[in-house]
Amino acid sequence: MPLCVVGSVALDSVETPTQQRDNVLGGSAVYFSYAASFFTTVRLAGVVGDDWPADNTAMLQARSIDTDGLQVVQGGKTFRWRGKYLPNMNDRETLELHLNVLATFDPVLPEAYRQCKFLFLANGSPTYQMKAIDQCPAASLIVADTMDHYIRNEREGLDKLLRRVHGLVLNDSEAKLLTGDDNLVRAGEAVRRMGPRFVVIKKGEHGAMFFGEDELYVMPAYPTARVVDPTGAGDSFAGGMMGYLAEQGNFEPKTLKRSLAYGTLMASFTVEDFSLDRLRTINRADLEKRMEEYKSMLSF
Amino acid sequence: MPLCVVGSVALDSVETPTQQRDNVLGGSAVYFSYAASFFTTVRLAGVVGDDWPADNTAMLQARSIDTDGLQVVQGGKTFRWRGKYLPNMNDRETLELHLNVLATFDPVLPEAYRQCKFLFLANGSPTYQMKAIDQCPAASLIVADTMDHYIRNEREGLDKLLRRVHGLVLNDSEAKLLTGDDNLVRAGEAVRRMGPRFVVIKKGEHGAMFFGEDELYVMPAYPTARVVDPTGAGDSFAGGMMGYLAEQGNFEPKTLKRSLAYGTLMASFTVEDFSLDRLRTINRADLEKRMEEYKSMLSF
Repeated sequence: MPLCVVGSVALDSVETPTQQRDNVLGGSAVYFSYAASFFTTVRLAGVVGDDWPADNTAMLQARSIDTDGLQVVQGGKTFRWRGKYLPNMNDRETLELHLNVLATFDPVLPEAYRQCKFLFLANGSPTYQMKAIDQCPAASLIVADTMDHYIRNEREGLDKLLRRVHGLVLNDSEAKLLTGDDNLVRAGEAVRRMGPRFVVIKKGEHGAMFFGEDELYVMPAYPTARVVDPTGAGDSFAGGMMGYLAEQGNFEPKTLKRSLAYGTLMASFTVEDFSLDRLRTINRADLEKRMEEYKSMLSF
Repeated sequence: MPLCVVGSVALDSVETPTQQRDNVLGGSAVYFSYAASFFTTVRLAGVVGDDWPADNTAMLQARSIDTDGLQVVQGGKTFRWRGKYLPNMNDRETLELHLNVLATFDPVLPEAYRQCKFLFLANGSPTYQMKAIDQCPAASLIVADTMDHYIRNEREGLDKLLRRVHGLVLNDSEAKLLTGDDNLVRAGEAVRRMGPRFVVIKKGEHGAMFFGEDELYVMPAYPTARVVDPTGAGDSFAGGMMGYLAEQGNFEPKTLKRSLAYGTLMASFTVEDFSLDRLRTINRADLEKRMEEYKSMLSF
């Protein structure tokens, strides 16, 4: 079943303690789409400027990612982010952030997108996330991501959004900020009381926690020695999760749990190289192989 | 099969954001012994001053913990620690530390202790840890814990110790300090190259990682909303782990994996109240009930 995503499309520049890449393909909706494309057709909505390399779009299309909803603003510039990872590879500093065309992004979804039953609102302003929801009346599963900037500066819009979505995916620090509670178990439950039926707290190298109506569980990250660039890990997590759900066509508790495992593994591949470079080298069989290892790791 | 432990016995004073306790029963060997006593007979070696309440000893003995190896120094004072937890309940400051009789501790193990096949060296100076090993020629499984202080100040002794133990248990920050590597997967493997056949890295609220000859796995912490006092969680983890191994009488890969799960759960109970207060309210059936929940949480 196809999956619609609305979010940022970016050109990223990334510095790690040992390497650097400039203007590589990035953005929350891009990582999400690529990860989800291992499972299902993805319809990507976002905005870029005319500096956006056509090759990038072609590469996404070759993965059966529908880019009809990718607006190209003539004379505009693509959203750019430059960041630097600290030696622990978990903390990072934003060195430059140019919203460019993303600042005035107004999602207008093509007809095929509006029929989607599965909708993901990648990191972005609650205002445009809400506009996307309004255009997708057929959506039976709406999941959003958010971040500290919107928690601090667009709280009212975010609160409204939380009452419209079925699921929320956010980082541990964001969950603490949103709820004012440093205990993640309580924080996750508090976020659920704000509206979403389920909440996923992403803890980076420490895995993820799931909060549902009668369920609370944790999933460790897949341990990898090769952390090259953590950018996009959280978005790939969401892409693996939503992609699997859309492939299965349901979001029952069992399916949701397996979807978190797929999200965990997509994130583990993403961090093993810059941009989408590692994801571009793997296929579904590689993913299933890692899934077997992961399941065996967790059984005793 | 009985289990021998050598380590600190303390009177702790603990401040959390909402509560405070003074001079409560603590110390690495005490938490370890109590947690292990759910599984097997424990022989505790340590040292206290004559300010040590006899009630504490009686309480441990009532758990079938052998205290023949607990030296009482007349005219001496028991090791005391005062610490304060930050609001996140994961980071803490040491406000006061008085080694007192622990400063000159020279373990002399009673005969029954010397016959033990399972030996745990709780956090302490590598010098006295090594002395304990020398007195236990029958030990077929020797596992040690260590901490930043000894990594920084007694590195030579620690390096020697690492070549004498079969297993090492340490915190994530300590593994990074010991190896100079911020990636825990690489750090764990690097510690193994220093001597131990297996290494367990404890990550507090994020669980634990295991490194064996052909095995690497992670186990998440059991999620609890009720974190009252994290003191002793790591020692209880080790106690649950070693206690289960001693009960089973082997340390094959399957047994080791289950032992880590028991360690995880003992730690989860310990943090739910001050000192040993939570552990004193549970029995083996409570532990097995949480084990069922934990296993179900990790299966999908």
